[in-house]
Amino acid sequence: MSPTGSPMQLHLCTWLEVETYLQRSQGIIMPIGSTEQHGPTGLIGTDAICAEVIAKGVGEATEALVGPTINVGMALHHTEFPGSMSLRPSTLLLVIRDYLVSLARAGFRQFFFINGHGGNVATLKAAFSETYATIADLNLPEADQTRCRLNNWYMNSQVYQLAKELYGNREGSHATPSEVAVTQFVYPEAIKDAPLNPEVASGHPIYGAANFRQHYPDGRMGSDPSLATPEHGRSLYEAAVESIAKDYQKFLGTQ
Amino acid sequence: MSPTGSPMQLHLCTWLEVETYLQRSQGIIMPIGSTEQHGPTGLIGTDAICAEVIAKGVGEATEALVGPTINVGMALHHTEFPGSMSLRPSTLLLVIRDYLVSLARAGFRQFFFINGHGGNVATLKAAFSETYATIADLNLPEADQTRCRLNNWYMNSQVYQLAKELYGNREGSHATPSEVAVTQFVYPEAIKDAPLNPEVASGHPIYGAANFRQHYPDGRMGSDPSLATPEHGRSLYEAAVESIAKDYQKFLGTQ
Amino acid sequence: MSPTGSPMQLHLCTWLEVETYLQRSQGIIMPIGSTEQHGPTGLIGTDAICAEVIAKGVGEATEALVGPTINVGMALHHTEFPGSMSLRPSTLLLVIRDYLVSLARAGFRQFFFINGHGGNVATLKAAFSETYATIADLNLPEADQTRCRLNNWYMNSQVYQLAKELYGNREGSHATPSEVAVTQFVYPEAIKDAPLNPEVASGHPIYGAANFRQHYPDGRMGSDPSLATPEHGRSLYEAAVESIAKDYQKFLGTQ
Amino acid sequence: MSPTGSPMQLHLCTWLEVETYLQRSQGIIMPIGSTEQHGPTGLIGTDAICAEVIAKGVGEATEALVGPTINVGMALHHTEFPGSMSLRPSTLLLVIRDYLVSLARAGFRQFFFINGHGGNVATLKAAFSETYATIADLNLPEADQTRCRLNNWYMNSQVYQLAKELYGNREGSHATPSEVAVTQFVYPEAIKDAPLNPEVASGHPIYGAANFRQHYPDGRMGSDPSLATPEHGRSLYEAAVESIAKDYQKFLGTQ
Amino acid sequence: MSPTGSPMQLHLCTWLEVETYLQRSQGIIMPIGSTEQHGPTGLIGTDAICAEVIAKGVGEATEALVGPTINVGMALHHTEFPGSMSLRPSTLLLVIRDYLVSLARAGFRQFFFINGHGGNVATLKAAFSETYATIADLNLPEADQTRCRLNNWYMNSQVYQLAKELYGNREGSHATPSEVAVTQFVYPEAIKDAPLNPEVASGHPIYGAANFRQHYPDGRMGSDPSLATPEHGRSLYEAAVESIAKDYQKFLGTQ
Amino acid sequence: MSPTGSPMQLHLCTWLEVETYLQRSQGIIMPIGSTEQHGPTGLIGTDAICAEVIAKGVGEATEALVGPTINVGMALHHTEFPGSMSLRPSTLLLVIRDYLVSLARAGFRQFFFINGHGGNVATLKAAFSETYATIADLNLPEADQTRCRLNNWYMNSQVYQLAKELYGNREGSHATPSEVAVTQFVYPEAIKDAPLNPEVASGHPIYGAANFRQHYPDGRMGSDPSLATPEHGRSLYEAAVESIAKDYQKFLGTQ
Repeated sequence: MSPTGSPMQLHLCTWLEVETYLQRSQGIIMPIGSTEQHGPTGLIGTDAICAEVIAKGVGEATEALVGPTINVGMALHHTEFPGSMSLRPSTLLLVIRDYLVSLARAGFRQFFFINGHGGNVATLKAAFSETYATIADLNLPEADQTRCRLNNWYMNSQVYQLAKELYGNREGSHATPSEVAVTQFVYPEAIKDAPLNPEVASGHPIYGAANFRQHYPDGRMGSDPSLATPEHGRSLYEAAVESIAKDYQKFLGTQ
Repeated sequence: MSPTGSPMQLHLCTWLEVETYLQRSQGIIMPIGSTEQHGPTGLIGTDAICAEVIAKGVGEATEALVGPTINVGMALHHTEFPGSMSLRPSTLLLVIRDYLVSLARAGFRQFFFINGHGGNVATLKAAFSETYATIADLNLPEADQTRCRLNNWYMNSQVYQLAKELYGNREGSHATPSEVAVTQFVYPEAIKDAPLNPEVASGHPIYGAANFRQHYPDGRMGSDPSLATPEHGRSLYEAAVESIAKDYQKFLGTQ
Repeated sequence: MSPTGSPMQLHLCTWLEVETYLQRSQGIIMPIGSTEQHGPTGLIGTDAICAEVIAKGVGEATEALVGPTINVGMALHHTEFPGSMSLRPSTLLLVIRDYLVSLARAGFRQFFFINGHGGNVATLKAAFSETYATIADLNLPEADQTRCRLNNWYMNSQVYQLAKELYGNREGSHATPSEVAVTQFVYPEAIKDAPLNPEVASGHPIYGAANFRQHYPDGRMGSDPSLATPEHGRSLYEAAVESIAKDYQKFLGTQ
Repeated sequence: MSPTGSPMQLHLCTWLEVETYLQRSQGIIMPIGSTEQHGPTGLIGTDAICAEVIAKGVGEATEALVGPTINVGMALHHTEFPGSMSLRPSTLLLVIRDYLVSLARAGFRQFFFINGHGGNVATLKAAFSETYATIADLNLPEADQTRCRLNNWYMNSQVYQLAKELYGNREGSHATPSEVAVTQFVYPEAIKDAPLNPEVASGHPIYGAANFRQHYPDGRMGSDPSLATPEHGRSLYEAAVESIAKDYQKFLGTQ
Repeated sequence: MSPTGSPMQLHLCTWLEVETYLQRSQGIIMPIGSTEQHGPTGLIGTDAICAEVIAKGVGEATEALVGPTINVGMALHHTEFPGSMSLRPSTLLLVIRDYLVSLARAGFRQFFFINGHGGNVATLKAAFSETYATIADLNLPEADQTRCRLNNWYMNSQVYQLAKELYGNREGSHATPSEVAVTQFVYPEAIKDAPLNPEVASGHPIYGAANFRQHYPDGRMGSDPSLATPEHGRSLYEAAVESIAKDYQKFLGTQ
Repeated sequence: MSPTGSPMQLHLCTWLEVETYLQRSQGIIMPIGSTEQHGPTGLIGTDAICAEVIAKGVGEATEALVGPTINVGMALHHTEFPGSMSLRPSTLLLVIRDYLVSLARAGFRQFFFINGHGGNVATLKAAFSETYATIADLNLPEADQTRCRLNNWYMNSQVYQLAKELYGNREGSHATPSEVAVTQFVYPEAIKDAPLNPEVASGHPIYGAANFRQHYPDGRMGSDPSLATPEHGRSLYEAAVESIAKDYQKFLGTQ
């Protein structure tokens, strides 16, 4: 699935390889996406696909281990559109806690989440706090070195800049051409076509699921995903990997 | 405790008055603070004191009802300093859910949180999502009109500007002179004096409690609270009330 | 808010002051109230107001630290009246656990709850048991010295006696003249007037919220709060403080 | 196990018999005990044995259905003595909720708990409140008729009086001769003999498990169970059944 | 209730006896049943009655301690039939965890569940996994020796064989003549009579409660309980005890 | 990632396509794996890789929608080996509930889990029961048609037979040559080489994590994964797809 090479994925390692890896690094990259509507033409897996491919790219660039993708995140506000799936925040919080406790027991101490979905941000940050406290009670060695970092690939300044150049204010904030472009780059065979109303709602804050669908009837938020191309996707992917790889290195280097 | 007058506090109303209020408004202002160390001279209740007094000011300015202050929030990273108290994120999430469900059953639909503590933000937003879904299942009338909004008083541009003018880069990000000033305005009898090392740590991200105390040994994050005065506090309070009152009105006016 | 002086409130201390305090005492006073209807003339915050003011008085009398007030308790049976708020028992239990674990980590060992609401009693006691077990697992020093005590200010014999003298059987058991009087003493500006049916329901046990409202249509339980005066409030306050201060001293002295 | 006849136990009915029963009554008797140390000579099952046998007696006297005994309750403070078992309060609360929701779906509306253990009281009452709210959300017919009642058999005035006559102040408050006598009446083959120190601790409040064992080294609280006889047990049993049967009838008759 | 003698029941021991027992064995037998419809003639307590009597028999045969019976298990799919009770799986999981943690603290390490109900199997096994992890965090001595085993008495080959001989394909899979026979052996006074449609549904998988009742309108699954006799019950009981006693010994002997 | 074609993956659909799909089918295939050690040469993602590829194959063969893979399951007993990750059973139960509730709201009614890990079985089945009850309370149309099915690909008779032919008793029960072969077929570039002790432990039951590692020091359970080849993997994959496709069709056809 990685277009560019052979990153070190946890799923493709043996436990002996992980044991060896831990001698040189206690860091791991954790991709997290979502399973939710992305407008008439966007893939339901957009956020997971983007997070996963970029995480693999960053893993390759930094020789870091990449954990399994969290495919379903916090997307309750999208659940009036069929195919959307969501964990409750209270559940996602426990999932993150369990993931990190498992890895912390083995010696991992730096957790770098590459995130593809704005709806995950709050719960992830809450989960980090909950997890620090949980890990502190387990009396693991150097528990106070446990650090989590959240990196939203689409918020990265290099990516943000490129999206702005390519799409201006037609980028919008959900089902954006930039995220759709990345999925087109990864799955060119799954480029979808559907009529897109040129009038697209925007600016309404996000509340509950019924309210969301009332205000965003086709699921897009101010975006024009018809602008996306696989080539844009490659550029955005490369920009994301380049700048997030630096972020990861910096994250490891600090305490 | 409100220095300026007589807002409509839920705690000082009867249920009949609330019943009447609901005929003209379904909005309510919810102050939320924290109980945590604020450096050698800052009050442990700083965040709750600030949120409460500003909420009362906004309530008075907008004739809105003001709910009871949430005194203890999410401050796990401060708990290595004695006197700090914290809910786990998973607990705070349930608290918010229970608060809002109670009020929603009575007919409230717009919940405007005035927040005094950055550590609450993630959990509050996660709780809003959880609550929309919970309320949707209760089959209340117009459940889809339920809306929550988070307003961090210290992030407000008018306040932020004033703090910058008064303190420049000595504002810092925890135990700031601006929040200390507001508490001095409210409780001039509780202005504290203690030696403050002019070298103050800053820039280290927030992880767990032990890690926090290692990096911020006296509890301050880049701030010089000795600059605070009660008069500054009054100005900051007034700036906050003025601009947040507008935010609240705007929040009510939208859907 | 304290009518009589300057107790040692956690919210008005610095962490350094708490550190010093812990060298002479590991006790803390925790006020807990409720946010619930108190009949046509009683304040929704009655139970929190009473618990808080008395806790401050006791704190002053005993030089004990007073923690932040728990404003919202277990009042599910009042939630058919607008303005009432409640935590579920399962939530309140976690809140208490989190409060006490935070404080226990810092060295507090004796937790003295001054309670203003009968509906909190069961959940508080259950929470104490849960918390002892939780704290025991944390391997804190002298964890076995952890002790919680519940003091219902209105059940205190001196207070009870005075209420009986003042109001006889018109005291009732909810929205009582004695608790209303204490709020009038604290907030004379918030004395409310409303018609009170001289026939007031009483004697029906408390079950669910709908059942409660059916049997107690105006919210009172056998009480005549029109008898309350601020002067009574002062007397009741003083009686409560005097006798609860002794209870606290005794609590500290035993093991 | 019932010494006196053939009560209507849920476990010995078919579902068709329950269906028929519900046409004449929506009440059910729920015995709840505990599994905990009862001093050197008391049975670990004492509280469950007493609650169960008395519940069956009351069921027989009132032609009421008797549910299955909750054998393990809230006895965290006894868990330093081997053989003691306990649910956490947060677990017991869910157990009660699940029991009552199951029965409420079938049409039961009056739940009368006969309790053999003081440690259960707080959690049971908290669970009742939680359950009323849960059932209210299920939209069952006549949900507002749901009523729970807690009857501590040993607190009943008739029983209390008899215990006082038989044992005076050697009754104590845990591993009492009266509860031991009831178990001797039910299980005469399991009367135990062990040295009992005539000096028995009393008066120390109950906190955590380690604290409890320090203060009550053999498990008794102020009691002299050597006074118990099976004949006393029969008298206490009969007093309990007679007076609790009246309580149950009264409970059904009110709303 | 045991037809054959005097097993060592935890409920009939003192804590001193348990202390002594632990010096020779760290094993305990835990009976778990259910409270659910068993067709027109089967007792609602069938699964608990069978598990309890067989557990006592095995306890007697092996001189093992027998814990209190879990009377209510996971029977959500039966709850459309009045009298059925169920814990949610998430609740039962906590119950098992609490039971085993209590016992593990006292030194028990081998937990042998004798189960009377297929619906409990999945949750029990999930609970074992959860409990191993919980106990590992408690730093108990020899925590890694903790072992749980599930024994479904009706699946035992000796029992299964006998049931097949006695009833052939009229054994069915719920409200079976074999389990009914065991209850007849234990409670001959509670043998029920009701018309049984010779056409009995079978083969439909188990989903939710409404679906179950649609497909199994009288509650039986392919069984003809009219074939049951108390004598069969005795034979089945004896076969179960004999073979499960061996299983228990073997379980203790392995690690 | 699918070696054979283009199944209908939820992640590669738009919400409009899902809406259309629901008009012809309410069924969905859900792959669930695990992230756990698989011996010295097996991939940590083995169970997820196998479940995912087979689910895609079955989706293609049956024109069924395939949901996102659950990558991390219940593998607590493997967590002493680095790289293993696990949800607690109580967490996985909530994850499954949230997944299915999301999909049920949109109209899905038949959930067919293709599972790659024995450790998931108990929790999945418990979660199904919990979910039926949760969905029943949501008042969705035709909620009683909700059906879940668990299909362990490796237990399928056709697969089982083939594995036996290929590997005989060297198949073992964890890190088996058959599952390793399937991963070699999917990821030929990730075939690992490591010394395998010809003496491999087997027959010890699974308890906690420390106990597991003591008895299975290199992680294998009785298996010889050196026998695996990518060609075997293809055959096993094809056998699994062929027979599970029939199972799915049959599952849809029944009620």
